[in-house]
Amino acid sequence: MNILHSEKSAEHFSGNQQEQHPEIKIALAQLEIEPGRPDLNVARIIEIIKAERQRLTDLVVFPEMAVSGYMLGDKWESRSFVEDLAAYNQEIAAATEGITAIWGNLDLDHSKINHDGTVRKYNAALVAQNGQLLPPKVYKTNLPTYRQFHDARHFTSAAELAREQHQTLADLIAPVEIQLHDTRIKLGLLLCEDMWWEDYGPDFNVARILQQKGVDLLINLSCSPWGLNKNNKRHRVVKNLLPEDQQRPPFLYVNNVGMQDIGKTLFHFDGGTTAYDQDGKIIGECRRNLAGTLHLSLQQGQISIEPNTDHSSASPEIGTPATLENQETPIQEIKQALISSMKKFAVQNRMKRIIIGLSGGIDSAVSAALWSEVIGAENVFAVNMPTRYNSSTTKNIAELIAHNLGVNYSVVPIENDFNNTVKELEEVTFQDASGLVRTIKLSGLNKENIQSRLRGSTVLSGLASALGAYISCNGNKVEFAYGYATLYGDIIGALAPLGDLLKGQVYDLAREINRESSSEIIHEECLTLIASAELSEDQNIDQGKGDPFLYPYHDTLTRHFVEWLHQPEDILKLLLAGKFETLGVSEEQLLKYFGSREKMLTDLEHKWTALHKNVFKRYQAPPIIKVSSRAFGYDFHESQVPAYFSRRYQQLKTKFLEK
Amino acid sequence: MNILHSEKSAEHFSGNQQEQHPEIKIALAQLEIEPGRPDLNVARIIEIIKAERQRLTDLVVFPEMAVSGYMLGDKWESRSFVEDLAAYNQEIAAATEGITAIWGNLDLDHSKINHDGTVRKYNAALVAQNGQLLPPKVYKTNLPTYRQFHDARHFTSAAELAREQHQTLADLIAPVEIQLHDTRIKLGLLLCEDMWWEDYGPDFNVARILQQKGVDLLINLSCSPWGLNKNNKRHRVVKNLLPEDQQRPPFLYVNNVGMQDIGKTLFHFDGGTTAYDQDGKIIGECRRNLAGTLHLSLQQGQISIEPNTDHSSASPEIGTPATLENQETPIQEIKQALISSMKKFAVQNRMKRIIIGLSGGIDSAVSAALWSEVIGAENVFAVNMPTRYNSSTTKNIAELIAHNLGVNYSVVPIENDFNNTVKELEEVTFQDASGLVRTIKLSGLNKENIQSRLRGSTVLSGLASALGAYISCNGNKVEFAYGYATLYGDIIGALAPLGDLLKGQVYDLAREINRESSSEIIHEECLTLIASAELSEDQNIDQGKGDPFLYPYHDTLTRHFVEWLHQPEDILKLLLAGKFETLGVSEEQLLKYFGSREKMLTDLEHKWTALHKNVFKRYQAPPIIKVSSRAFGYDFHESQVPAYFSRRYQQLKTKFLEK
Repeated sequence: MNILHSEKSAEHFSGNQQEQHPEIKIALAQLEIEPGRPDLNVARIIEIIKAERQRLTDLVVFPEMAVSGYMLGDKWESRSFVEDLAAYNQEIAAATEGITAIWGNLDLDHSKINHDGTVRKYNAALVAQNGQLLPPKVYKTNLPTYRQFHDARHFTSAAELAREQHQTLADLIAPVEIQLHDTRIKLGLLLCEDMWWEDYGPDFNVARILQQKGVDLLINLSCSPWGLNKNNKRHRVVKNLLPEDQQRPPFLYVNNVGMQDIGKTLFHFDGGTTAYDQDGKIIGECRRNLAGTLHLSLQQGQISIEPNTDHSSASPEIGTPATLENQETPIQEIKQALISSMKKFAVQNRMKRIIIGLSGGIDSAVSAALWSEVIGAENVFAVNMPTRYNSSTTKNIAELIAHNLGVNYSVVPIENDFNNTVKELEEVTFQDASGLVRTIKLSGLNKENIQSRLRGSTVLSGLASALGAYISCNGNKVEFAYGYATLYGDIIGALAPLGDLLKGQVYDLAREINRESSSEIIHEECLTLIASAELSEDQNIDQGKGDPFLYPYHDTLTRHFVEWLHQPEDILKLLLAGKFETLGVSEEQLLKYFGSREKMLTDLEHKWTALHKNVFKRYQAPPIIKVSSRAFGYDFHESQVPAYFSRRYQQLKTKFLEK
Repeated sequence: MNILHSEKSAEHFSGNQQEQHPEIKIALAQLEIEPGRPDLNVARIIEIIKAERQRLTDLVVFPEMAVSGYMLGDKWESRSFVEDLAAYNQEIAAATEGITAIWGNLDLDHSKINHDGTVRKYNAALVAQNGQLLPPKVYKTNLPTYRQFHDARHFTSAAELAREQHQTLADLIAPVEIQLHDTRIKLGLLLCEDMWWEDYGPDFNVARILQQKGVDLLINLSCSPWGLNKNNKRHRVVKNLLPEDQQRPPFLYVNNVGMQDIGKTLFHFDGGTTAYDQDGKIIGECRRNLAGTLHLSLQQGQISIEPNTDHSSASPEIGTPATLENQETPIQEIKQALISSMKKFAVQNRMKRIIIGLSGGIDSAVSAALWSEVIGAENVFAVNMPTRYNSSTTKNIAELIAHNLGVNYSVVPIENDFNNTVKELEEVTFQDASGLVRTIKLSGLNKENIQSRLRGSTVLSGLASALGAYISCNGNKVEFAYGYATLYGDIIGALAPLGDLLKGQVYDLAREINRESSSEIIHEECLTLIASAELSEDQNIDQGKGDPFLYPYHDTLTRHFVEWLHQPEDILKLLLAGKFETLGVSEEQLLKYFGSREKMLTDLEHKWTALHKNVFKRYQAPPIIKVSSRAFGYDFHESQVPAYFSRRYQQLKTKFLEK
């Protein structure tokens, strides 16, 4: 035991009781990870280790993949990159004089390969004490390979390693024993999915294996993105992880905060670092969505939260341990995820300004309000770009909302541009090899798209580059699903903040924004107005005409198709079983809107076909922030395959129409 | 044995010799699979089974995932979809009266789940004879989960099943025994990656396990995309699959043709269905890139190709067995992959017309030539859109190429539009909350981008919608890598045929197009011209100014970064070791172009940074066709992480500059 540690021990053991039952001080560091920047992350990790040593902490724990971040695409296949990452393990270990640290990073085995032929990589928990890495190696067992997770693409699991060595998983897995003061502590370490074992089968309940081997503490290192109600689900999982009739150790969960992306889709990490007692009861949690550290004490096998000590001397990364928070509403959680991710995205991309088309409709109003909160209203440039088809109603609302938000505002009518473009295009002639001349005639739909592209690619893009601003894409999930938007028109921008929100959620968000503000930000008229693209006379809101959607039916249909991978036959089953509540509407509403059962199915088939046809637009759409259980982008792999109607659908269709 | 079969047997056994050694007639069906359309695929499969029965074939074999196709994104997670697919197995089985058929499809086990919690799915080979599915179940063992492959995301492997049942893989795997005439034949069935076992370890050599159990025939059902030189690699793998000192059975490889996509990236399937004898020698191959059937005979354990029988009565899907083809050059193989994929993409999306910006440069010239071959020159609409910055040289070349190709052609100058847009944008004023007015000033770069966007989003997009045409994106891999292109400008379109080609390959392709044609299609001047965007005076080709790339150095650098995941430190290692040949240039050329070692590294750092910064443009770029070992799109997962320079890079940099 080194001097520093001895001094600390002396202090700890000053009382009689403590001599027999030494108190072990634990810090759970809810790190904000910078994905792809091991230099910055390791600097922060070492800074925290030093601060915790000063604080006489015995054991400091960091999240999974704390060195590199987790969502790095295929960077794991770069040999020099992973060797660079692995080398940081020694560097962190060297900083552990007088303290014990646990962190997530990869571990390499140069004598073996992964199934893709690259050097063998494990998603590992590293333990170091007094400058030395401690055995045994701890590798992730359950490698999630669904949705946004690609673990099996890059890592070898502990289960695979066991099989390779002709062992069972239970043979391989072992606690890590560490000496703290005069006590030997057995730590059972899990990596993220190791606690979510149910879909892998009981053999893969790593915590249970460790319990049977005897551990004093279970610690889960995670890099787990936020999801609606996911924290509550985790509390239940912890509660049921181990049989109650055997001794259960306290359970510590350490997760990171920040934003990481898998290309088209951004993920918010809310942290939620939590200490649970033996019964799975929550002892303490880090404040959500912020970097911070939870300080705990382990004594006589009991975990307790440290009294709220003075942190004035701590580094800025060391936050205040939080008490349990009030439950937020779903839309509050979603708003938090959006704002946090947008902020981080703005910092990551050095976004100083945002330019946004402000139509007077709900989507652009809500987007403008979010961006104002994220980078300040003074950095938001809102542009209203009317033609003859835009009503004074929406033009007035746009101006009002710009005023309410305090953003920079401009009205740039595109009527002249539109007329000139139509004229110029209709003057173009093509000559073919035989000299035959072909002229151009634009249809009504062609003209609608021209308006949209002039707004997006001429006005907004031109102003954006002059202002050094990024463009906000204001599309919502329903529009992306069915392609109710124009490529290079309204489908442009650096980020679509509402891209994973249903239309109903956009309204909920508008109400939440108004609730939070002392004054009305999003004008009531904007909330009650019929939604319309206002690109032609057929979309004249003053005549009650608008977008071809019935809400909440089409919202719900989108969830069925995208989140639950339901097909038209599944929707028909629900309709036939009279389960209209799962579609968000009554039979009467459906019949009233569509006019007949035939037309109801025509729309169902049209939407299913549109969902498939518009994969090509989603290919080229800006990134979005995941808030649903399945977001477009790489969270939802989509091939450009045609809409297919199964035989079962055809049978049920006949039945439905006969009814 | 049913009547039909008996009749056939009677015919077969008419000779004395054949009575003792019955001849078994085998057909390998190189199917063109329609991804996501099981109805169409199964209709074709059953049609082929019927035709083969008429032909008195004993055993007909189809590729892996022949019912659904393989690249379907996350459709595998749809319960009703996979149940629909599985139901087709009974339907195909029912069509096997008097014949034996083997095909790939999924197999479900409703009593179990996958690790993602969805119903248990196996990538399976199904065997049916006389209307009945035959045991044992054959499931894919090695589940590729890299690059474009996501098997572990959707399927459970035979290895996992064995583990679950506390068996070894060798315990689980068994030949399928079938009765053909009076002989029992033991078939060893593999699914695609099962033959590419090397990265999985010797325990996973499924062919070897089957050999040890005794099989008369090894058959591999594949759904394996084309890659440069991949067929030759496969021949070597087959040759070395089994130890030579034990009896080796003939090996049959059945693959599909067509195009399948994983979102941003299209894959060409060239078939390459092959029969190998015991020594791994090629006996016969299907004609590449076309649907067809290879007819074989198995007698006394020897496989032989059937004499070229009259196929006039066969269904259109039954092609002519091909003799071994001449080796193509790499650029010929690439052209074949591009043309085949573009054709299939055009059919899939009902593309009747293509519109293309024709600048006079090499990329648009080659793209126009490809599209002319794909959908006919009469359906290609080429537009030259000059401003004052476009030289008469390139304008003349554009016209000449349009003439050579015989496409529809139009010149649409955008000078006026450009001037008006600049004027209008510079007249825009923004007012902030305090009433402060901000004006707009466009920079030179802003103006370059305005030209590009006017061409793409105003002229081409406007004409495209009027003509019902799809837009060709003409970008190459180097431009996509470093973002040397404008979003909503030249980065628009339905498909970027050259998106995975290096600049040097684009020139090779131009020469190949000229070679194939009787006359010069792509004018010599276009091949020798300096490459330039011609968006400003600084890009004036008449003054010898052009794009900021040194070829082939920047081509090669792109391969290092993208295909081999090399980092700047790896490039520095090559430079320090004097391995300039791996960078495509000599030290002298590098120094002459950059001027100094410092500037060489400045460019290296700039390109590495640009590669990362421009992930956002690639997010929004059109799909491409994979021809390299790693293509942008979902073949190369990219997160929007910043460029990171490792400590090793900094050390080597110092060393390099001191030299």
